[in-house]
Amino acid sequence: MKRMREKRTPIPVGECVGRVMPYAKNRKQEIIALEEAHGRFLAEDLIADHDIPAFDRSPYDGFAVRSQDTKEASSLHPVELAVRGEIGAGSVFEHTVSAMQAVRIMTGAPIPKGCDAVAMLEVTKEYTKDNQPIVQIKRSFNSGDNISFQGEETTKGTVLASKGTYITPGVAALLATFGYSNVAVFKKPVVGLLATGSELVEVSDPVERGKIRNSNAHMLRAQIEKAGGEVNYFGIMPDDLSQCYNAVKAALSEVDMLITTGGVSVGDYDYLPDVYKQLQAEVLFNKIAMRPGSVTTVARMEEKLLFGLSGNPTACYVGFELLARPVISTYAGKRTPHLRKEKALLGKDFLKPNPFMRFVSGRLSYREGQLIASPLSFTKSSAVSSLAHADTLIIFPGGTRGYKEGMLVDVLLLDDVRGSEWPW
Amino acid sequence: MKRMREKRTPIPVGECVGRVMPYAKNRKQEIIALEEAHGRFLAEDLIADHDIPAFDRSPYDGFAVRSQDTKEASSLHPVELAVRGEIGAGSVFEHTVSAMQAVRIMTGAPIPKGCDAVAMLEVTKEYTKDNQPIVQIKRSFNSGDNISFQGEETTKGTVLASKGTYITPGVAALLATFGYSNVAVFKKPVVGLLATGSELVEVSDPVERGKIRNSNAHMLRAQIEKAGGEVNYFGIMPDDLSQCYNAVKAALSEVDMLITTGGVSVGDYDYLPDVYKQLQAEVLFNKIAMRPGSVTTVARMEEKLLFGLSGNPTACYVGFELLARPVISTYAGKRTPHLRKEKALLGKDFLKPNPFMRFVSGRLSYREGQLIASPLSFTKSSAVSSLAHADTLIIFPGGTRGYKEGMLVDVLLLDDVRGSEWPW
Repeated sequence: MKRMREKRTPIPVGECVGRVMPYAKNRKQEIIALEEAHGRFLAEDLIADHDIPAFDRSPYDGFAVRSQDTKEASSLHPVELAVRGEIGAGSVFEHTVSAMQAVRIMTGAPIPKGCDAVAMLEVTKEYTKDNQPIVQIKRSFNSGDNISFQGEETTKGTVLASKGTYITPGVAALLATFGYSNVAVFKKPVVGLLATGSELVEVSDPVERGKIRNSNAHMLRAQIEKAGGEVNYFGIMPDDLSQCYNAVKAALSEVDMLITTGGVSVGDYDYLPDVYKQLQAEVLFNKIAMRPGSVTTVARMEEKLLFGLSGNPTACYVGFELLARPVISTYAGKRTPHLRKEKALLGKDFLKPNPFMRFVSGRLSYREGQLIASPLSFTKSSAVSSLAHADTLIIFPGGTRGYKEGMLVDVLLLDDVRGSEWPW
Repeated sequence: MKRMREKRTPIPVGECVGRVMPYAKNRKQEIIALEEAHGRFLAEDLIADHDIPAFDRSPYDGFAVRSQDTKEASSLHPVELAVRGEIGAGSVFEHTVSAMQAVRIMTGAPIPKGCDAVAMLEVTKEYTKDNQPIVQIKRSFNSGDNISFQGEETTKGTVLASKGTYITPGVAALLATFGYSNVAVFKKPVVGLLATGSELVEVSDPVERGKIRNSNAHMLRAQIEKAGGEVNYFGIMPDDLSQCYNAVKAALSEVDMLITTGGVSVGDYDYLPDVYKQLQAEVLFNKIAMRPGSVTTVARMEEKLLFGLSGNPTACYVGFELLARPVISTYAGKRTPHLRKEKALLGKDFLKPNPFMRFVSGRLSYREGQLIASPLSFTKSSAVSSLAHADTLIIFPGGTRGYKEGMLVDVLLLDDVRGSEWPW
C-alpha cells in the first residue's frame, strides 16, 4: 500500500493552460433546426441570401407618387392626385402608375411601377371628388424621397456574422431573415464525468458515518453544460486501482475528454497518477502554482484530454474553470473560450498573504459603472455556500502582502458570455 | 376598410412596466431531477439536512493521536506511538485507540474513538520496531488540533439558499450535498407566439416580391427561452380581423401569456386593437413614450397578458426586453426579473437629440474596470445586424441635446444573469 512520496514541481497557471489548449479542437459540426440554435456557435459564416430591402419599399404609411407631379405643389396650391388603389404589406401593385395618379401604400410594401417617392400620410388629405378618390398634396417631393431602396441595408452575399459567432436572439433573427431554417453549428463535445473516492455516496443515499454525498459531479455537470458541453456521467469509483483503471479506460473510449474528481493528490489512496501511468498517458502537469486546485492534473491519451480535478469542491470548481472550461468551449465553437478577465476595485480587505497565486470567489457590483469585487467571506461557515453565490474569481498574485479595499485587482467573470481569447 | 385615426396617449416606460407587473406571477411549481436543475429557480428554501462536517474528521493526511500522549514530545525527545491501523476516506475505525497508540488517517476520514488530534504526515516519521509499525512524533498537540469538528461549517436546518435562487453550478453542489436528488423549481411559463402580417413568409420559403421572412418569431423564441419561458409557436396570421381574432382566442386558451408581433400600429391593416376589443380584453396601454417600440401594446384578458409587439425588428426586441421579459422571468421564479441597469461612460458621440426616451443597442467594454457603452453605429447598413452584436441597450432620455463621448449614461445589461428588482 505504501508508495514513494512523489515530488511535484508547481507550474504557473498560464503555462498550464498553454500546455492544454493545443488539444482543444472544434472540428465536428452538425446541422440543427433554427428553433434549436439559440446558445450554440455558428460553424459557417452567415451570409445574406438576398438584398435588404429585397425591393424598393415604403418606410411609412402614405401615398406612392410620381415626384414630377408634385413639383408645383404648395400649401397655397396643393395638387390633387387620383388614387388608383392601395398596396398592403405583402401585396404587389401590378399596374403602372400614370401622370397625376397616386397609390395608397403601407409600411413595407413595394413601390409601384411609375412612382419614385412617397408622401407620408400625415402631409396628405383624402376626399372624394366626382366619385373619384383623391389625395391632396401640399408640398413637392424629389425623386427618391421616402423610399427604402433595394440593397441599401445589406447586399446579397454580405457576411453578417462570421463562423464562431454565438447565436443570440439577434443572430437568430438574422438566420431567419436569410433563410437558414437549418443551421450549421459546432457539435457539443461529449464530456465524460467520473467521481472517485470510497467516501462518496450518491445524492439519494443516506449519509452514513464516514461518507459524504457526491456533490462535485453535480457541480461539474452544471459547469460542463454552462461551458457548452454534453455530460456522460459514469458514476462513482471506489479507491481501487484496477477498478479505476478499467473505468477510466472504458469511459475514455466513449467521450471527447474525461473529467475525474478526486484521487489526484499524493495520498495513499490517490490512484489517478497510477492510472495515467498504466494508460501510458502523457501527464502535461500535476501541480499548479495556485491555491486552491494546486493538485489539478491534466494528462493526454492520444488526442483526448483527461482532467484530474481535486476532490475538494472549491479546488475542483477553480480547476475546471481555468483548465477544462476553455477546452470544452473551444470544442463547442467559441473563439473566446476562456473566462473574461477584467480589472475591479477590491470591495473588502483581503489581508492574508499567500506565497502562491490565489483565486478567491467573490461577488461583483458596480458603483457609477466602476466594477467592484468583494471576496465572499472566508470563514469556515461560508465555505460550503460561497461558490453558490459567487460570480467572480478574484486573482490575488502570490506575495508577502495582503490586499486592501480599493486596490485594483484582476477578476475573472464567471457569468460573462463573451469570454476572453487569452487572459494569462 | 378605412377607420378613424385613433389618437393615442404616450405613457412613460416605467409606468407601463408598472401596469404590467401585477399580472406577473410564479405560483406554479414542479419537481425535477437534480440533473435538470441547472438554470432554473428554487421554489423552496435549500436546507441543510445534516451537519457539515457530518462527523469530526481529519482535514489532512496524517496520524490520529491522543494529545495527552504527545505532551512531552520534542525534537530532542520524540515519542513513539504504535500504529494500530489506517482509515481511508469513507471507512470507519471500529476500535477505541488506547494510550501510546495512533492510527494512520486520510483527509476526510472520521477521527477514531479515543483520539483528539491529528499529526500531519509531514511532521511524522514511520518505521518498524520489533515487527511493530511505529510513528515517531516530535512535537506536542493540544486536544482538537487539526480536527474539523462536526457542524463547524453548517448545522442541520440552516437555510443555505432561499426560494427564488438561481441554480448555478455552486447551488447544484449544495443541492447534491444535502440530498436533493429531486428539486422543487418554478415551472417555466408557456408563452404563446403568433406573428401577424400578410407580408410574412416562413424561413424555409423563398422571398417573393413584397414578402419578407418571419424573423421576429425566431428572435422572440430565443428571447423567451433566455428569459426562462417555454415557447408555443402558433405560426403566421394574415392581416384579416376574423382570422386574427380566432387565432388569438384559441392560442390564449393554451398558454400563460401570448406575444404577437405586428399589427399594433394605427395603419389600416393593423387588427390587433380590434382583436382586443372583440375579446373584451383590457388594454393597459397602447403607446409608450419611447423609441423604438412606441406602439407596443399590452392588454389583459382575465389574468393572462397579451403582449402586442411591433413588427419592426428593433422595436419588437426592445418591447420584449422591457415588458415581456420581466413577466416571463417572474413566472420562472426570478426575484430580480428586469434587465439590470447600471451606469456606463458613453464610448462614442450620439448627437442626435430625440424628444422621447431612446433605447440604442450597444456594445459594452471595460477600461480599468470602468464600464464603457458604445452605440452600434446607426447607419442604414448596420440596422440589420446591430441587434446581433448588441449586449446592452443604452438609455438616452428625451430632450433637446445629444450625448457626447465620456458622459455617464444609463445602460441595461442584456446578458447579465443577475437582473434587477426594479430599474425604473
